[in-house]
Amino acid sequence: MKNMSEFDFIKWIQGRAPGGRLTLGIGDDAAELALGRERLVFAADMLLEGRHFDLAQCEPRLVGRKALAVNLSDMAAMAAEPLAFVVSLALPRDGGRRLGEELTNGMIELAETFDVALAGGDTTSWDGPLVVNVAIVGRSPEKGAVTRSGARPGDWIFVTGRLGGSLAGHHLRFAPRVKEALLLREDFDVRAMIDLSDGLASDLRHISEASRCGAVLRRAALPVSEVALSQHGDEAWRAALGDGEDFELCFALPPDAGRRLAARGEIGGTPVTHVGQMTEGKGLQWDDGSDITETGFVHDLR
Amino acid sequence: MKNMSEFDFIKWIQGRAPGGRLTLGIGDDAAELALGRERLVFAADMLLEGRHFDLAQCEPRLVGRKALAVNLSDMAAMAAEPLAFVVSLALPRDGGRRLGEELTNGMIELAETFDVALAGGDTTSWDGPLVVNVAIVGRSPEKGAVTRSGARPGDWIFVTGRLGGSLAGHHLRFAPRVKEALLLREDFDVRAMIDLSDGLASDLRHISEASRCGAVLRRAALPVSEVALSQHGDEAWRAALGDGEDFELCFALPPDAGRRLAARGEIGGTPVTHVGQMTEGKGLQWDDGSDITETGFVHDLR
Repeated sequence: MKNMSEFDFIKWIQGRAPGGRLTLGIGDDAAELALGRERLVFAADMLLEGRHFDLAQCEPRLVGRKALAVNLSDMAAMAAEPLAFVVSLALPRDGGRRLGEELTNGMIELAETFDVALAGGDTTSWDGPLVVNVAIVGRSPEKGAVTRSGARPGDWIFVTGRLGGSLAGHHLRFAPRVKEALLLREDFDVRAMIDLSDGLASDLRHISEASRCGAVLRRAALPVSEVALSQHGDEAWRAALGDGEDFELCFALPPDAGRRLAARGEIGGTPVTHVGQMTEGKGLQWDDGSDITETGFVHDLR
Repeated sequence: MKNMSEFDFIKWIQGRAPGGRLTLGIGDDAAELALGRERLVFAADMLLEGRHFDLAQCEPRLVGRKALAVNLSDMAAMAAEPLAFVVSLALPRDGGRRLGEELTNGMIELAETFDVALAGGDTTSWDGPLVVNVAIVGRSPEKGAVTRSGARPGDWIFVTGRLGGSLAGHHLRFAPRVKEALLLREDFDVRAMIDLSDGLASDLRHISEASRCGAVLRRAALPVSEVALSQHGDEAWRAALGDGEDFELCFALPPDAGRRLAARGEIGGTPVTHVGQMTEGKGLQWDDGSDITETGFVHDLR
């Protein structure tokens, strides 16, 4: 088969996976299962040398940091409190031990900041490139985890931080929005949330499809990063819309809560921007009524 | 650095890892953390093409099966009930989609048998070899998870099933001893347990060191597999001692419980064999007083 996208493969798995125990199955940023009175959130992300990073251009410490950070971002997307993670490393035979130590140091530093425990894992040396997998467990908030599917027409759409140009460096050093997500869950009636890994156009489309709503974006309101501005000037909104790896949160609030948050302009010290509205329609549009055709980054599986 | 073994790297991590939340940290078959009144067990294992399997000699379905099975075996070693797992796949660009489907089918089949949920994961295509990582969560039994460190001098040492020659096929088709482990925890006072991934000599040494006891093995009692017998005849005990990947359980019971289990000769329908005793001493010896020098399989990290 050719050009089946990773999304299609995920859908194929979704239709077959035994998920009886799950309170939330495959198809969100993390799955959820009940354990006694608690709800556990569970996710994994794998970083591959030559595909997700290039060791010639990036310190191993930052690769380790990122491997954990993307998982923390998945927990944030669910408004879950991250608890512990396990690491699997495939290390190249030559220099693998030092590489492993530097990676681990990068992870540990971030783990301490977020108070998550390194619970173990698996290490092997081999003749292939560096592979770093992190799997993480967290606890759902008392009010329940936030999915992609709870948005309703009229909800206000927000993003944290600034978007675009992440590959210039932000993607290695970003701060996962865990604290912000917990505050949104606690203090605002956040209805749907996702972390921006593939770009706003692509990720908001996931909320829109899962929630069976349309979405309208205000182009002039998009919070564009300094890097994207200096790279693209007047066209920087394209970077904000299509570049991946921002690892900011995109979320929907009912109008009342939306007005309250927009007036505050920040959550936990991080700026938030009201970028649009969920609608009765389908798909993504600009506020001038034209369709948003940008798709963001699509991963191909051949 | 050169020839640092994976065990050394694990010890290096152990000394540095932030583990405040863990009730059992790095250094056992899985870690444990408290979640409300429950105890959660968490582990991961990564299989690498060319290192752990060869697609020219092994159906993808069996690779997927094994990737989950080794994780179920880690749960068994803790006497934990496996609940859910996440899968990360790095798929070669050509034929990756079909490979991914076959792998997943092999996992799903085993998952259904053991009633564990496939909770998601991460899939990427790349130019490298096939990588399959599974991370698993389980629930500790009411009496608490079983570690490697609880054996005492005088305890009887048992193994499930038969040992040696696993690479002839058993390593791809073995039945993880989950049910057996839960029964041992429930009905016998199992004090220490490990699954045999590196070979009895190596893995029993882990129990011995963690429990600060010695161990004496009865050579004539070792339950040798048919394959090892046909391959090695009178020397088949070496295979039973040193071959890795049996994925049977090795465990220690207090003498009373040991006598009871030895008389029964099975747990959950699986044969168990009394192979030796824990002692006041140090290290591993044969019942004739000679030292056991075999080390089993040691993974090198350079």
